[in-house]
Amino acid sequence: MHSTEKVQEALKGVMDPELQRNIVELGMVRDIQINGARVSLTLALTTLACPLKDKIVDDARQAVLALDGIDEVAIELAEMTDEERARISSEGQTYSGQAAHLNHIHHVIAVMSGKGGVGKSLVSGLLAVALRRKGMQVGVLDADITGPSIPKMFFPNGARPGATPAAILPAQSQSGVKIMSINLLLEREDQAVIWRGPLIGGAIQQFWGDVLWGELDCLIVDLPPGTSDASLTVMQSLPLNGVVLVTSPQDLAGMVVRKAAQMAQQLNKPILGLVENLSYFVCPDTGKRYDIFGPSHADEVALRLGVPFLGRLPIDSQIAELCDQGKIEDYASEVFATIVERLVEKVFT
Amino acid sequence: MHSTEKVQEALKGVMDPELQRNIVELGMVRDIQINGARVSLTLALTTLACPLKDKIVDDARQAVLALDGIDEVAIELAEMTDEERARISSEGQTYSGQAAHLNHIHHVIAVMSGKGGVGKSLVSGLLAVALRRKGMQVGVLDADITGPSIPKMFFPNGARPGATPAAILPAQSQSGVKIMSINLLLEREDQAVIWRGPLIGGAIQQFWGDVLWGELDCLIVDLPPGTSDASLTVMQSLPLNGVVLVTSPQDLAGMVVRKAAQMAQQLNKPILGLVENLSYFVCPDTGKRYDIFGPSHADEVALRLGVPFLGRLPIDSQIAELCDQGKIEDYASEVFATIVERLVEKVFT
Repeated sequence: MHSTEKVQEALKGVMDPELQRNIVELGMVRDIQINGARVSLTLALTTLACPLKDKIVDDARQAVLALDGIDEVAIELAEMTDEERARISSEGQTYSGQAAHLNHIHHVIAVMSGKGGVGKSLVSGLLAVALRRKGMQVGVLDADITGPSIPKMFFPNGARPGATPAAILPAQSQSGVKIMSINLLLEREDQAVIWRGPLIGGAIQQFWGDVLWGELDCLIVDLPPGTSDASLTVMQSLPLNGVVLVTSPQDLAGMVVRKAAQMAQQLNKPILGLVENLSYFVCPDTGKRYDIFGPSHADEVALRLGVPFLGRLPIDSQIAELCDQGKIEDYASEVFATIVERLVEKVFT
Repeated sequence: MHSTEKVQEALKGVMDPELQRNIVELGMVRDIQINGARVSLTLALTTLACPLKDKIVDDARQAVLALDGIDEVAIELAEMTDEERARISSEGQTYSGQAAHLNHIHHVIAVMSGKGGVGKSLVSGLLAVALRRKGMQVGVLDADITGPSIPKMFFPNGARPGATPAAILPAQSQSGVKIMSINLLLEREDQAVIWRGPLIGGAIQQFWGDVLWGELDCLIVDLPPGTSDASLTVMQSLPLNGVVLVTSPQDLAGMVVRKAAQMAQQLNKPILGLVENLSYFVCPDTGKRYDIFGPSHADEVALRLGVPFLGRLPIDSQIAELCDQGKIEDYASEVFATIVERLVEKVFT
């Protein structure tokens, strides 16, 4: 017959997918009783409305059934008290913003588009690389918690942030760009982060306050699509110098980027300029140019918003490939160099 | 000299950008006093931490200054009590889910990708058109509240939903697809919706419970990027029959779509299949095919996820153009027809 310790040990393998810690450590497992081949126990969830309830119960059941000689598991559900919940969330906060006092970040620029897939992360990454090539100290804060793209562009073999008792150390790319992203913390890069807004906002604030960025000439914040929690948190709690908008030739993208611009304006963040990505495709065999996503009207959009138009980036299969291989730092582009010059002029002079 | 009523009238032109109602109606304007050319008043905000505080104060000041003979406006800020706040939010709920009882929706399918810009809305739209052509009653619920793309594809000249005292009536496309989207409710299509998660979730639930969809063979739910609030709300509160995943050839998109798949699996929603969009570009002059976003490995991704691979959609400048013009219903594509057949087989037989 097993001891309750053995059952508890087995249950340490079950994670709460939201809190990313095991259910024993979280104090969820209670009243383990063993009766021959039958185990009964209570799981105290943070809330009975927990979206992942079935998954946790199922995982717990499987973990116990995997023990020799156990063929029945009865699980009762309970809900934690407010105090218990509070304890969990305060335990999670190992850090407390101390790193922020040691950081000297001279400029903070957010890259935003409203719509997804127009190339925010590409522009964030290329911008970081270009500023680094100019000899600046550069960081990238990946504020896209549910769909982070930055690590894949910079690290061909993955990377892990470091840690001191007081702070998280950002990962460093080959050329020395400092990078922080949720995907550097996940066990597997394709692990889902199923969090509601407050947790998303908390993660972003930790990336600002608990990461030892040190002295940076420029921190680039790569925003997720949308004008909801992540963008609000960045605009309200980070000292942004300005926002770079990214759009594509589609009318649809133009419409959504105007929403993003409106958000920046309503929150009093200066818009540094507009970049158009996916502008055209140059056929490598004939040199002919195709406006695959429609004719560009980025200069119109920029004019309408009253913001500088910084330039156009073509569709380039080389860049897609380099990004997928973690080699964005190997990319050289005259087109982008011009865009960066215009931006540097606005921000750093 | 003006009356306080006159000042109040002027302030009715000032909207709370978050609540989308004017500040007088919301009960925010208090203690208007007029002293010669000077007006003083108190603005009671829902919270003093309101991100749009400066904007509201500024708009209010401008509105009063626009009155003849007023050249000074002093505004004090106050915070509403819990009761006042509760009243505002209950007033907002004109409807209460009654419509849901009148609806008969036989199948609900969500279209999801995790990553933005890979073509969720395109797939949602084409799917709706294809099912409608088969004679089905079809609806599209645009769950992308901050970057809604559906109305632009279906309505060349915009559209408005109807209303009865008990429900909202969806807008109808030319071929009779019923559509509900936040953009049908905004004054201007490029107006930003700067809401945190709970408001986003509330809007989605209203689109389900307060919209008179009537009898539908299929309701297609177009999800925003990410695995946060909107996706959680849809998966937890709508009776989904399954999820269609959309990806693109980029490794990056593949990684993020696996996150989306994991979310669906954790919440016990069946995945109906995977569609790859932006797969390749056929040069119209030479007929040669270019893998612009890298070589496809969608069948691999599908295999790895254990879900059916439904097919590939090429990059087609015609479709981008039709979508921008509100004419998605004019598009005919054999490739997509095959995808739909595979899906129909899974869902409707």
